[in-house]
Amino acid sequence: MALIVQKYGGTSVGSIERIHRVADQVSRTLREGYQTVVVLSAMSGETDRLIKLAQQATPTPDEREMDVLLSTGERVTIALLAMELRGRGINARSYTGRQVGIMTDSAHTNARIARVTADRIREALEEGIVPVVAGFQGINEQSDVTTLGRGGSDLSAVALAAALKADRCIIYTDVDGVYTADPNIVPTATRIEKISYEEMLEMASLGAKVLQARSVEFAAKFKVPVEVNSSFKEGKGTLVTKEDTDMEAAAVAGVTGDRNQAKITIVGVPDKPGVAARIFGTVAEAHINVDMIIQNISQTAATDLSFTVHKADLKKAVPIIQAVAKDIEAKSVAVTEAIAKVSLIGVGMRSHSGVAAKMFEVLAREGINIMMISTSEIKISCVIDEKYLELAMRSLHSAVGLDQIQS
Amino acid sequence: MALIVQKYGGTSVGSIERIHRVADQVSRTLREGYQTVVVLSAMSGETDRLIKLAQQATPTPDEREMDVLLSTGERVTIALLAMELRGRGINARSYTGRQVGIMTDSAHTNARIARVTADRIREALEEGIVPVVAGFQGINEQSDVTTLGRGGSDLSAVALAAALKADRCIIYTDVDGVYTADPNIVPTATRIEKISYEEMLEMASLGAKVLQARSVEFAAKFKVPVEVNSSFKEGKGTLVTKEDTDMEAAAVAGVTGDRNQAKITIVGVPDKPGVAARIFGTVAEAHINVDMIIQNISQTAATDLSFTVHKADLKKAVPIIQAVAKDIEAKSVAVTEAIAKVSLIGVGMRSHSGVAAKMFEVLAREGINIMMISTSEIKISCVIDEKYLELAMRSLHSAVGLDQIQS
Repeated sequence: MALIVQKYGGTSVGSIERIHRVADQVSRTLREGYQTVVVLSAMSGETDRLIKLAQQATPTPDEREMDVLLSTGERVTIALLAMELRGRGINARSYTGRQVGIMTDSAHTNARIARVTADRIREALEEGIVPVVAGFQGINEQSDVTTLGRGGSDLSAVALAAALKADRCIIYTDVDGVYTADPNIVPTATRIEKISYEEMLEMASLGAKVLQARSVEFAAKFKVPVEVNSSFKEGKGTLVTKEDTDMEAAAVAGVTGDRNQAKITIVGVPDKPGVAARIFGTVAEAHINVDMIIQNISQTAATDLSFTVHKADLKKAVPIIQAVAKDIEAKSVAVTEAIAKVSLIGVGMRSHSGVAAKMFEVLAREGINIMMISTSEIKISCVIDEKYLELAMRSLHSAVGLDQIQS
Repeated sequence: MALIVQKYGGTSVGSIERIHRVADQVSRTLREGYQTVVVLSAMSGETDRLIKLAQQATPTPDEREMDVLLSTGERVTIALLAMELRGRGINARSYTGRQVGIMTDSAHTNARIARVTADRIREALEEGIVPVVAGFQGINEQSDVTTLGRGGSDLSAVALAAALKADRCIIYTDVDGVYTADPNIVPTATRIEKISYEEMLEMASLGAKVLQARSVEFAAKFKVPVEVNSSFKEGKGTLVTKEDTDMEAAAVAGVTGDRNQAKITIVGVPDKPGVAARIFGTVAEAHINVDMIIQNISQTAATDLSFTVHKADLKKAVPIIQAVAKDIEAKSVAVTEAIAKVSLIGVGMRSHSGVAAKMFEVLAREGINIMMISTSEIKISCVIDEKYLELAMRSLHSAVGLDQIQS
């Protein structure tokens, strides 16, 4: 009997009425003859409510305590769904992250999964029980509750699917799949039927919000077929799977836009060996991730160094950078928040040349200045002025031929 | 260093502002040089909110899942208080029922404590940590969450105080102690400074809501001195402790009223051996507690049998009783909800005679008919028409001399 792990996000369990619909969907899957494990997020809005309470209690809440607080959200939804299913005569049972055996490190509020034992879930399945599992949470070696960071329920579902060797992990969400671009920005965007782990990982990292990036990494590592589908309407969704031959048709699979970066420029950096190491060493020590870096070529003894960080890290990063800038006798530090990153992603870029050239050409034609560029085997990203992001995405989507595909 | 277990009820942690005040109180206790363990209930209203959600999900929610749901309430408050204390520089840590080692049986929603290991709490105290513990919850042998029933946080606090051999367990609540009667009904009621476990147990069982009866039993068994005090104003409170000589002064310690009983009468019960056993055996099998029983003396071959059950059990009890009545060929079943039980409690009754006589005399003088009577060594209860309850309580309070004591 094929085993399916189903994950429902916050909007899918956002009210009792929606939980009724999840119960309908679970019943249907069981009737179709599948063994089913259900993974749930907290009701939409609940995590924000709890975070607000914490911030009212104290300005910088302790992270271990945040995890005790936040992990209550999924316990509420799993209990509600399990009791509703039992009320319908289905032998469902709720299991917390601890009971599932989601073992993590101790990085509270953003823990990494070390291993998943899933013994109780295996036993439950053998007894014909439908396990309803709390996503987003695990426990560390001290048996303290940990949480996996925003979007962590995707990771719980994929990790559990890997541990159980499930035939498929279906992520039910408020959209019916992964699109060639955000349809709110690019109206001609179309649903992708099949996408490789690598492309999905780049898309998730570069701004597509439909799947958490870490869950895609995990799925790729353990070869878990992941389907993204709508919990509100029936349809085919998107299958995230390993690359196969018919994926090579298109050079570009999708276009993403990301407004969450900010640019920091250190002006007048003395051109001496070891200066870059000093700057980025200090930034790394503060656990701030740097995305793109460019250094202006300069004829003089000083140069300008620009790099991007996540907007959320900006407050923490600026004083650190200012201190380093002073130390190394740079002239000044400039910060720009009004930037955006537009990216083209596709495994086809490996065999199709000229994608980068086309991208630069399109942006130039639209009069959009490129501030920074970064590339990998399967993507090209350009940092541009934030106000041109929608225009850039639409123009690129059309220019690389995505408007036509699958339409 | 003396060890105090402090328990705060739902109204004491009902908002962030009130949690601030609990943090103030904990800080004060620490400054006074006590080792402190804090036990918390859920925010007032939260348990009702969760119960409502469950009832919307399914008419008769599974009890194991109810416990998963309800146990989230205390996790929220312990996390909030622990993070607030840490924000103030106090090394506090939250612990769930499982982490404390509150081991219970598997009677979900009304579990009994089997043992309390408290290993992590002992370790925490040795390390100078202030443990903030979730009341009301434990785990069973399958490592599933259980809850201890309404008022169960009192029991958690007392059981933990017993396990840790604490010097005192302080129950902070919205009143400043145990009163000779409910001050809302009897304005001349006064706070009792010291009361014996036995009296407190009777008072709690007979309608005084200030302490959960099972927690008093537990305190008596393990000789835990329990103080009931106000979390809103400073003052002396009431000490619940073992009986000592100066407690014998007053015959009656307090007057209680209880509106939670209903009377069931089986009319025309054939006067045959084994009939009573048959009736109450069936009732017991359905886990319905019977409080008082009277059988009318009768000259004929049939008699009337009346007994009281908790109002909450009435719906369940009536069809069972009707079936039994039919079986034993009784005439009919009558139910009265408009009854109340008024009681006098005091260890002094052992040595003072005439308390019962005085009670009957007072009720007669006020024209109040007595429907049922039950007595023990330290209490007398009368079932009367509900509408006379306040009058009965005030008259008795005055007649047994409680109006003057400690005033």
